[in-house]
Amino acid sequence: MSNSQPGGTERGTERIEAFSDGVFAIAITLLVLEIKVPHGSDADLLGSLLGQWPAYLAYVLSFVMIGIYWANHHYIFKLFQKTDHALNLLNLLFLLFIAFLPLPTEVLGQYLLDRTNQTTAVTVYALGLLFPAATWLLMWLYATWGYRIVDRRLDAGYLRLLTLQYIGSVALYSGAVVVSLIDFRWGLSICIGLTLLYLLPPKSPVYRREKH
Amino acid sequence: MSNSQPGGTERGTERIEAFSDGVFAIAITLLVLEIKVPHGSDADLLGSLLGQWPAYLAYVLSFVMIGIYWANHHYIFKLFQKTDHALNLLNLLFLLFIAFLPLPTEVLGQYLLDRTNQTTAVTVYALGLLFPAATWLLMWLYATWGYRIVDRRLDAGYLRLLTLQYIGSVALYSGAVVVSLIDFRWGLSICIGLTLLYLLPPKSPVYRREKH
Amino acid sequence: MSNSQPGGTERGTERIEAFSDGVFAIAITLLVLEIKVPHGSDADLLGSLLGQWPAYLAYVLSFVMIGIYWANHHYIFKLFQKTDHALNLLNLLFLLFIAFLPLPTEVLGQYLLDRTNQTTAVTVYALGLLFPAATWLLMWLYATWGYRIVDRRLDAGYLRLLTLQYIGSVALYSGAVVVSLIDFRWGLSICIGLTLLYLLPPKSPVYRREKH
Amino acid sequence: MSNSQPGGTERGTERIEAFSDGVFAIAITLLVLEIKVPHGSDADLLGSLLGQWPAYLAYVLSFVMIGIYWANHHYIFKLFQKTDHALNLLNLLFLLFIAFLPLPTEVLGQYLLDRTNQTTAVTVYALGLLFPAATWLLMWLYATWGYRIVDRRLDAGYLRLLTLQYIGSVALYSGAVVVSLIDFRWGLSICIGLTLLYLLPPKSPVYRREKH
Repeated sequence: MSNSQPGGTERGTERIEAFSDGVFAIAITLLVLEIKVPHGSDADLLGSLLGQWPAYLAYVLSFVMIGIYWANHHYIFKLFQKTDHALNLLNLLFLLFIAFLPLPTEVLGQYLLDRTNQTTAVTVYALGLLFPAATWLLMWLYATWGYRIVDRRLDAGYLRLLTLQYIGSVALYSGAVVVSLIDFRWGLSICIGLTLLYLLPPKSPVYRREKH
Repeated sequence: MSNSQPGGTERGTERIEAFSDGVFAIAITLLVLEIKVPHGSDADLLGSLLGQWPAYLAYVLSFVMIGIYWANHHYIFKLFQKTDHALNLLNLLFLLFIAFLPLPTEVLGQYLLDRTNQTTAVTVYALGLLFPAATWLLMWLYATWGYRIVDRRLDAGYLRLLTLQYIGSVALYSGAVVVSLIDFRWGLSICIGLTLLYLLPPKSPVYRREKH
Repeated sequence: MSNSQPGGTERGTERIEAFSDGVFAIAITLLVLEIKVPHGSDADLLGSLLGQWPAYLAYVLSFVMIGIYWANHHYIFKLFQKTDHALNLLNLLFLLFIAFLPLPTEVLGQYLLDRTNQTTAVTVYALGLLFPAATWLLMWLYATWGYRIVDRRLDAGYLRLLTLQYIGSVALYSGAVVVSLIDFRWGLSICIGLTLLYLLPPKSPVYRREKH
Repeated sequence: MSNSQPGGTERGTERIEAFSDGVFAIAITLLVLEIKVPHGSDADLLGSLLGQWPAYLAYVLSFVMIGIYWANHHYIFKLFQKTDHALNLLNLLFLLFIAFLPLPTEVLGQYLLDRTNQTTAVTVYALGLLFPAATWLLMWLYATWGYRIVDRRLDAGYLRLLTLQYIGSVALYSGAVVVSLIDFRWGLSICIGLTLLYLLPPKSPVYRREKH
């Protein structure tokens, strides 16, 4: 198929979406590897398993986050008409932070109950969520600036709404990072709250009136 | 392709099936990472390898379970006419428990022979199988309620039969959880028996007569 | 697509091939996780890295084996006209052993130089290769028996040749298991030799003359 | 689909591209597993996390390298008209080194700050990048030699330019290996510089004039 006609560099978004899907699916499934089974046969297995509830909380939070990013990735790539080199690189940067999420997830799971380090743990986790949100915003700003990548038939007000929404996410995660330094409970609450908020259904794309 | 026509949010099931397939394939292949190679060069390698037979049993059980869920996932999604936001979230919840299976698998493999913890280990494993079965049932009930998602041409009796079957699974795994607390051997036997039962071929879908 | 027409249970081979491809790609890429980086900052890193050459040998052997199985899997599924429940289960059993390969690979890599356990290590590895070869043969015998699954236009002599070839593989791996018990060097040599043999190009399928 | 017409061995490049994509996506996502979360609840978590900055550097470098190889793999396979057995094997060899990259990445991350072993660590990492570059060149030379695999309509000068570029990469990575033995800082700088260089957009394919 790809050989049937001579062409320039790739322009469609199918390839980049398939690759991103792969990274999403693998990152989401690797999360479980960060939860350790307690060792030592004399140990109180039940107590150990129950005692690491922060690891399950972190697993659920990160699983849902990656799942939402997967859905949103499809959502915005459906608005894109093409891809270009810069967008490919921005997407790669975004995936770099998605694939990195298992690490802050493990940090949160292991240190949330550790009084010395729980503040650090939550801050690291909030940072782990801030990075993909920030590169997502970058990707979006690049794609929508002067309708560079997005479908020209899309309504400007609709695009502006999404832009505001993505800026809001970055602002709130930045807030979570700062707040967690003061009280880790509040930082974590913001992270959980945002995840729950993202579970709301996405708005249907709005196209310009004259085109329909 | 996805840009060729303006549209609302995604409705087809291809994307969600492809993502789920990825998670199934990765989770099933990660199971082997939960089996440890005995360390220490002076050790009796053969004895150590044979001695961890519960890990192989757990590997086979979970591998077959995920493989069956993969096949059944395709089977029911072929009955679905579309997808919607709630189904996507229920499917994500189901995948969350599928991707989690390597953990109870490792627990079973490591603690089945440990007298102090073998009851806990089997209960945890039965719980690990109950969770995906329960979210599967939820997904099914949501999809079939008033033919919300499933093909309207499907026979009501046929759908009821599948509903009963999925309720039966949840009941039996719940039973396995309770029974394993009394005698872990019986709990494990129910888990193994159900897995064997699922190896039977699925019933062909039945459509309403007037439509054919 | 899958909803466009009511149908029985799935018959095409695309789905099962895509799932198998996923397991092949993941199993082959997980192999590297079985090689450990030596720890302890005062250690002689270069010596440690060079000293674990059996781990690299095992990595290359298993990588090539899985790669060849991937190619052969496509090769024989191109000969198949359809799939059925039994073939799906046999394929799942085959994949169970493919996904298990990282374990015997790690055993070989860690214990090949350990005098006490090197015989065990090579026997375990040869067994690790015998299992997929044997289930492969089972799958093939099931598919070709009375042209149950394979294309009826295929030449009987050509199918018989492949059958003999797959029986030969099982025989040779069985031989490798037995021989490795006597002298692990010979057992390993058979495994390496077979892998090299499989690098030869596959024979083009032969169809019956009357059909062409 | 694949059964619709009797044919010889597979010739299209779709299958090999899909398999390679899988390996790229998995290898890139496994990189994070090589970064360890510091253990011990009394430890200074923040200090430990910041102190392992070489692991993050190595993660970013390898992530970007695999991402670039993924893009380039699509780029050159679009120039290919078909595939054959030798190309399949060369591609498998290339993937063997891509899937191996997590190991030198972990070595670099863990030993860059270890005075005794930092030279070894950088040399191993440069070797880890040299191997895929060298097998890539081999694959390219095989494919372009006498237009064996590449589209005959491609301009000879354009192909020569790519050949020189790939030879240049191998030369520079070989240089990085040698230089790192003298001063690891310079070796690492060459590796980083080349990665940054690869971020430049690829040249559009040039076809012969008479054909257009």
